[in-house]
Amino acid sequence: MSGSITGNLLLAGRSERGSQGAVRGIEAATGAAMEPDFGGASPAQIEAACAAAHSAFQTYRETGLEQRAAFLEAIATNIEALGDALIVRCMAETGLPRPRLEGERARTAGQLRLFASVLREGSFLDLRLDTPLPDRKPLPRVDLRLRNIPLGPVAVFGASNFPLAFSVAGGDTASALAAGCPVIVKAHQAHPGTSELVGQAVTKAAADAGLPGGVFSLLFTEGAGGAQALVADARIKAVGFTGSRAGGTALMKIAQGRPAPIPVYAEMSSINPVILLPGALAARGAAIGTAFAGSLTLGAGQFCTNPGLILALEGEGLDSFVAAAAEAIRGAAAATMLTPGIRDAYDAAVGKLGGHEGVRTLARGQQGGAAAGQAALFETTAAGFLAHHELQEEVFGASGLVVRCPDLASLHRVIETLEGQLTAALHIDEADHEAARGLLPLLEGKVGRILVNGFGTGVEVSHAMVHGGPFPATSDGRSTSVGSLAIHRFLRPVSYQDLPQALLPEALRDGNPLGLPRMIDGKPGRD
Amino acid sequence: MSGSITGNLLLAGRSERGSQGAVRGIEAATGAAMEPDFGGASPAQIEAACAAAHSAFQTYRETGLEQRAAFLEAIATNIEALGDALIVRCMAETGLPRPRLEGERARTAGQLRLFASVLREGSFLDLRLDTPLPDRKPLPRVDLRLRNIPLGPVAVFGASNFPLAFSVAGGDTASALAAGCPVIVKAHQAHPGTSELVGQAVTKAAADAGLPGGVFSLLFTEGAGGAQALVADARIKAVGFTGSRAGGTALMKIAQGRPAPIPVYAEMSSINPVILLPGALAARGAAIGTAFAGSLTLGAGQFCTNPGLILALEGEGLDSFVAAAAEAIRGAAAATMLTPGIRDAYDAAVGKLGGHEGVRTLARGQQGGAAAGQAALFETTAAGFLAHHELQEEVFGASGLVVRCPDLASLHRVIETLEGQLTAALHIDEADHEAARGLLPLLEGKVGRILVNGFGTGVEVSHAMVHGGPFPATSDGRSTSVGSLAIHRFLRPVSYQDLPQALLPEALRDGNPLGLPRMIDGKPGRD
Repeated sequence: MSGSITGNLLLAGRSERGSQGAVRGIEAATGAAMEPDFGGASPAQIEAACAAAHSAFQTYRETGLEQRAAFLEAIATNIEALGDALIVRCMAETGLPRPRLEGERARTAGQLRLFASVLREGSFLDLRLDTPLPDRKPLPRVDLRLRNIPLGPVAVFGASNFPLAFSVAGGDTASALAAGCPVIVKAHQAHPGTSELVGQAVTKAAADAGLPGGVFSLLFTEGAGGAQALVADARIKAVGFTGSRAGGTALMKIAQGRPAPIPVYAEMSSINPVILLPGALAARGAAIGTAFAGSLTLGAGQFCTNPGLILALEGEGLDSFVAAAAEAIRGAAAATMLTPGIRDAYDAAVGKLGGHEGVRTLARGQQGGAAAGQAALFETTAAGFLAHHELQEEVFGASGLVVRCPDLASLHRVIETLEGQLTAALHIDEADHEAARGLLPLLEGKVGRILVNGFGTGVEVSHAMVHGGPFPATSDGRSTSVGSLAIHRFLRPVSYQDLPQALLPEALRDGNPLGLPRMIDGKPGRD
Repeated sequence: MSGSITGNLLLAGRSERGSQGAVRGIEAATGAAMEPDFGGASPAQIEAACAAAHSAFQTYRETGLEQRAAFLEAIATNIEALGDALIVRCMAETGLPRPRLEGERARTAGQLRLFASVLREGSFLDLRLDTPLPDRKPLPRVDLRLRNIPLGPVAVFGASNFPLAFSVAGGDTASALAAGCPVIVKAHQAHPGTSELVGQAVTKAAADAGLPGGVFSLLFTEGAGGAQALVADARIKAVGFTGSRAGGTALMKIAQGRPAPIPVYAEMSSINPVILLPGALAARGAAIGTAFAGSLTLGAGQFCTNPGLILALEGEGLDSFVAAAAEAIRGAAAATMLTPGIRDAYDAAVGKLGGHEGVRTLARGQQGGAAAGQAALFETTAAGFLAHHELQEEVFGASGLVVRCPDLASLHRVIETLEGQLTAALHIDEADHEAARGLLPLLEGKVGRILVNGFGTGVEVSHAMVHGGPFPATSDGRSTSVGSLAIHRFLRPVSYQDLPQALLPEALRDGNPLGLPRMIDGKPGRD
């Protein structure tokens, strides 16, 4: 871990100049190009990374749970040891403020340590034993034992908006490595220097643990061809992605078109409805409005869980909410966005909304420099929303749309037409419980997380978190990309019938030598 | 449950004549058309089944675990109560013998009862609670709770070769109903009368339990259009299928092309390699050969787990195996196949293998009538197998191919080129353990179940069973279609943040009122 940024790929433990094109970091606040440039991976280098990952897989998957846990912890420690150089580079590349990035670094390290604890606890293996019944009639029952095994090498596409927690050593990488899968990261071009530093931390941890270099590679690629080649490679067995709907669905298509299709876990697009019910609005409409504006503008609105849609029942409470939210938005400082491209896309989307026939502009935030996004608040009616599907499109940035619903029935209709979402938030008082109870089954079918009297922008990294949801929030609503359950995305079950003890995986042998949780004849526990 | 075959659809609790085209049962042994004919579902009837399933979902998913368990048990009892009429009709439609079908009926009922026990045990809900930490710095930790919820209505496509256990009330239906999903079955045209009888058993159980009719529908469809319409319907949220690779991949394509793609669990194609190592061959090559021929010809070879491929090291032991297997095959009686179409496809595939330049015919079984399949045994070399990918294609029926490998390295190469499989069997002695240990990681990457000194044709319905495997064995190697783990195909996790007790699902409330297994702060158990 040199701690210095070289512009090289990290190819299965080696630092090597990419030989096809280049990627250049851009200072978010100024748009200025930063040194050095990063060589793009050539087809041969991508192929070499895949070959190394394939070859490393057989060694890495056989590592013990403790060894793998220690490896994850070493990655966390190494990231922390990068010190301020990481934060400074990351601030420059992303425009995100220091406290946010320091928090995100802590979260990234905590995430790696959470998966270390998941490995030591062992439930993720889903060990199951069915006792043989040699005397059963008409046929004896065989000896059956089951465990989860890792899928194989995983390609990870980091996000622009979480340069640490959803990037090189973020949740996808941590959960795949925990599962026993080598990882090849395609670095996001919005923070190449940050990526290389974190990649060095992972590479050093792998080397120190004596693991084969192919357990981790970090590639920069110029253009989309490299990403496509990576997902199409037969040795890649799963894909983790956080980004746009267009990007995610393009990778899904490649993965499904392979001779042997593979799962793609793409987190893509969500407008995270916030539902305001009358009791809460009457009691504290203005306070909710102010809090909402704070959540909407947090981090320039560049969160997957940003509350982009407000669904509320008409009334005085809603008027108070709107007035307070609009006032807060008008005072909101412009904030530097992650990249010029993201800023341009935000401006275009907000411009389109502002010019939409059924949409009224309620407020715009403070103006800023060329790199800064200006917050925006719009409103429409339930009828207008239902008539215009394009109003559901995610606007990546601090833009919110209030939908005024004349009654509960129209609120139901609006929710029914929504696409899949990461989160839905309900703002309620005791008097709203009955209405909320009626909405919950509908919301459960639409989202991965339901929250009450808050906003979804904080995503706890823990055991009961679901950061996922039906399409297009993600490509696979059966899984989560945050929290300990994420490890299951990279596992599959295998059953062993009548194997002699000497050939069984240790975790499945008689006497439970590893002391792991095991289900015996359908009863969970520890034998 | 009239117990008489009417030729009607079962449309959300009502018996109704299909109004588009017709499907006719064929007596397998004679090819004669059977009475009555079955009206095919019209687009409007398919749409009505989907609408009813969608509407029933909200009621059905809220049923308690005990109520749902009792419903599954009532289906089992009702199937048994159909008595000999079911067996007689099924024998005629499929050509399968009485003992096999009586065994399959017991397995089907046992499968439903297994899922009833899974519901009562409750681990499948994956309940998780993270304790809130209101005083945590810098940010408090919220109250997070997680459970699995059902995906929604499921379309099930039954198999030709298991008219009970993988059909109308087979594993897919049992696991989907257990998960809380309404089911629409597209009956297989190879056993429409059997399907209607079993469909009546399910319909009666639903009515007796006071469930909405839409929880179950049974459709006959003429041509492929009905199946396509069902999978394309936005209200269908997952698909279970057992059948051909062409059929499964066609459904996958439709599911992926929807505005919101859905998971397809298709079990498709497998040749189930049997690997013979030298110690076992030397000790009992002939005995393994005889046993293999028995497994190959069981049920006319019409099992997904039929051992179609033998990989073995050259030597005297292999010669003994081949001699004994060939002798047993030559004596094997021809057996009536499920349908004329299956019989024709079998003959064509066997003819192609027999005429293949690199393949030698070792033995053919006894000839039979026009409806009967004649067993076949072929051999080739490792080099020949590696050079001709088409030798990997599944032959549905009692046809096996022996691949002679000069050494262990060539055996490895052959296994490396194999596509995904349901099972792999190893025949070994103590002396083969080292070689077997070297093969296991390779096999784990290729199959869902590894067995020793047996054949994969028996598939135990239990907790540690995996009946699945990488593509093309199935469309989704992360799951199983047999055994209690199958319920997870129809579930997804949802997280609840800061919900008041009154709005939380009962299973997640304080004090664990339902007494279910719950993971608290990462520790599994029962609080």
